[in-house]
Amino acid sequence: MPHLKLGLSMFRMGYHIAAWRHPDVPADGAMRLDAFLRVTQAAERGLFDLVFLADELAVRGSDNPPGAQARSGAAAELEPLTLLSALAPLTRTIGLVATGSTTYSEPYNLARQFLSLDHLSGGRAGWNVVTSWGAEDALNFGHMTVPDYDTRYDRAAEFVDVVRGLWASWDADAFVRDKATGLFHDPAKRHVLEHKGRCFTVRGPLSMARSPQGEPVMVFAGDSPAGRDIAARSADIVFTAKQDLADAKAFYASIKERLPAHGRREEDVVVMPGLMAIVGRTRDEARAKLDALQALIDPVLGLASLYDRLGDLSAHDVDGPVPEPKDPAFRSRAEVMWRLAQREGYTIRQLYMALASGRGHRVVVGTPADIADEMAHWQAERAADGFNVIPTHLPAAIDDFVEMVVPELQRRGLFRLAYEGPRLRDNLGLFRR
Amino acid sequence: MPHLKLGLSMFRMGYHIAAWRHPDVPADGAMRLDAFLRVTQAAERGLFDLVFLADELAVRGSDNPPGAQARSGAAAELEPLTLLSALAPLTRTIGLVATGSTTYSEPYNLARQFLSLDHLSGGRAGWNVVTSWGAEDALNFGHMTVPDYDTRYDRAAEFVDVVRGLWASWDADAFVRDKATGLFHDPAKRHVLEHKGRCFTVRGPLSMARSPQGEPVMVFAGDSPAGRDIAARSADIVFTAKQDLADAKAFYASIKERLPAHGRREEDVVVMPGLMAIVGRTRDEARAKLDALQALIDPVLGLASLYDRLGDLSAHDVDGPVPEPKDPAFRSRAEVMWRLAQREGYTIRQLYMALASGRGHRVVVGTPADIADEMAHWQAERAADGFNVIPTHLPAAIDDFVEMVVPELQRRGLFRLAYEGPRLRDNLGLFRR
Repeated sequence: MPHLKLGLSMFRMGYHIAAWRHPDVPADGAMRLDAFLRVTQAAERGLFDLVFLADELAVRGSDNPPGAQARSGAAAELEPLTLLSALAPLTRTIGLVATGSTTYSEPYNLARQFLSLDHLSGGRAGWNVVTSWGAEDALNFGHMTVPDYDTRYDRAAEFVDVVRGLWASWDADAFVRDKATGLFHDPAKRHVLEHKGRCFTVRGPLSMARSPQGEPVMVFAGDSPAGRDIAARSADIVFTAKQDLADAKAFYASIKERLPAHGRREEDVVVMPGLMAIVGRTRDEARAKLDALQALIDPVLGLASLYDRLGDLSAHDVDGPVPEPKDPAFRSRAEVMWRLAQREGYTIRQLYMALASGRGHRVVVGTPADIADEMAHWQAERAADGFNVIPTHLPAAIDDFVEMVVPELQRRGLFRLAYEGPRLRDNLGLFRR
Repeated sequence: MPHLKLGLSMFRMGYHIAAWRHPDVPADGAMRLDAFLRVTQAAERGLFDLVFLADELAVRGSDNPPGAQARSGAAAELEPLTLLSALAPLTRTIGLVATGSTTYSEPYNLARQFLSLDHLSGGRAGWNVVTSWGAEDALNFGHMTVPDYDTRYDRAAEFVDVVRGLWASWDADAFVRDKATGLFHDPAKRHVLEHKGRCFTVRGPLSMARSPQGEPVMVFAGDSPAGRDIAARSADIVFTAKQDLADAKAFYASIKERLPAHGRREEDVVVMPGLMAIVGRTRDEARAKLDALQALIDPVLGLASLYDRLGDLSAHDVDGPVPEPKDPAFRSRAEVMWRLAQREGYTIRQLYMALASGRGHRVVVGTPADIADEMAHWQAERAADGFNVIPTHLPAAIDDFVEMVVPELQRRGLFRLAYEGPRLRDNLGLFRR
């Protein structure tokens, strides 16, 4: 089997909803460069391909029931492109992937900032392409409602083409900088984009030399048919959240089978499901780590994590049964949750504990061998080419993974013993033909 | 007299139009972090208040006559916000000021990135507010023509208010992060902007804690009445290009006299004209430094520097007389130039050499005492509170300034002997009341 690829998803100081309250977590870490540096250096020590920053264009998370947002750890976070730019000179080899919205930015500005990060890092940048679907985001950009799905995806597809076109403004040898003759660049090696489309008119060229790795790495996570089509056309990496092996295999197949239509091969795209691995030297130790976090969940936040599906449960005893959904606005979404609670005999608290940890990603609790078994199994079953590691809390979760899981993967021949090269594409093994 | 404030304007590897061809200049420096780091560290050793990056949203400079752009050193430059973010952890005290356009960006995005740079640098960020007036810029953002003056300035004024409003989203003590109680932030210390204006509708709050220096430093350089009004309302620093003391005094007075209407005092705004200082241990040495650069000017670039005012002179002998302007499109702008050439007996080459060095800024060639005399005189005459140093070529010009001029200013009691504090506002002495 080829080596697995590994990403680390940085989100505040961890994905577990109680992460910031854990005694080992710097509660102000999401505003501190040194906290992100500590985490990124651990991932680099573990030979991770990349660190990744998710993003939204508003304070994240709803305030239902009221008070939830103030307890969630949201609202004080550094901005991804500036943060990764600051990390660039402090790291050597690890890839730096930021999220950038196609809905509320201009392709010329975004193309320029990502390519600049790519140069600053010596060819280690990646762009996670998203459309912004949040109502709170829209209100920060003059939209009373979120642009509809088709509008957002049409714009995203064209946006990506413009950005990639701008990145191709100059041949790699366009800048001759000949002091003797006075010629700085060769105009024959400049490509003026002259893009005129439905959403954008952008002339170009970009005022920046070509990427040291040819082009920044393109990352997509859209799960919809339109999202998968854009990914098949332009992705180097596809992130996904799948809790179930069968779902992950189906998704993997649907991405790979779309590639030939775009003249691309299976191995041109790396599919990386999210994996929240909670690892201990024993299974009991791993379980105890999760239990310690679960015990810190504020009930208001627990109820907030159920709000979108079950409505407001704050009038009910959190240690009592999950009430049968009555509000028709929540009825259909509520049914699955309520049946799960009935089947397992969950109280409200037990239900949100069961659901809250991974934020939709697969959660595996166990020894290094348990985690490696799972990863190898998903790879062998064609559900994954690698994993985007979703840490419970930082820096502990990445330290654990690097100290325990990485050596286990290396022993099995599933992971690199050293970086293949200095650029992100060297390590991903993905150069555009 | 109060101490002078000093900025260093970084532009590629120097402002002289032949800078990149100088033997001491790294010709690829504008794409290299280490080149900017070398320059910024020199300025920091010299106790400069700040480094500054100008910016445009297109390849800079015209291609008239054809071939000029390819010889100008344009088209390969890092993007300011990402570059300054990378410099932040590699420097300690110097301010980091980037240009950001109000014409082709969204206030939420810009507010967030500048405030993030401010946090990453421990309170050293500044925003140089510009409107984009270039035709080439417009074509990269879907505009067939540049938005007119009033449109750009109305948008700029509202844009600035929105950004400053978003920066005030959270009180300095809003984030309590109390692990025991689970309260992360105090909602009573959150301020939702709810801005609804002519150009923008932005709800807020920004998802970031308040600036370590209260608010990033605001820099303006607009010379028009509307530009001066926005500056009087919101500027901490005003940059200007003035070659003549009388002009500089008039400008200085016009800024200072606008302040009381906004409830501000004279000392709340620092006026910093640009100063290209070419310094040598003797006047001959200084003159020789300028001559060496002048000799490297490619005639095509020299003609390009005259093109906007005199039209295309490429059919004429560069060492012959400046022809009398005939093209009516250039007539009025050409008159001043042509009269200057007549009066001084300049050939075409001598004319562009006389004009090209400072790109509109005052050029002073001399010993450290000569430069310090000029600076002191401008300060005493109420034409300047400090200077934005415009380097001919880098890193030589900043090294010269720091080694020769700074000690001379210190000897005269005109410049600090150590930084006043770790934040840009500490050193500028500008905290908002």
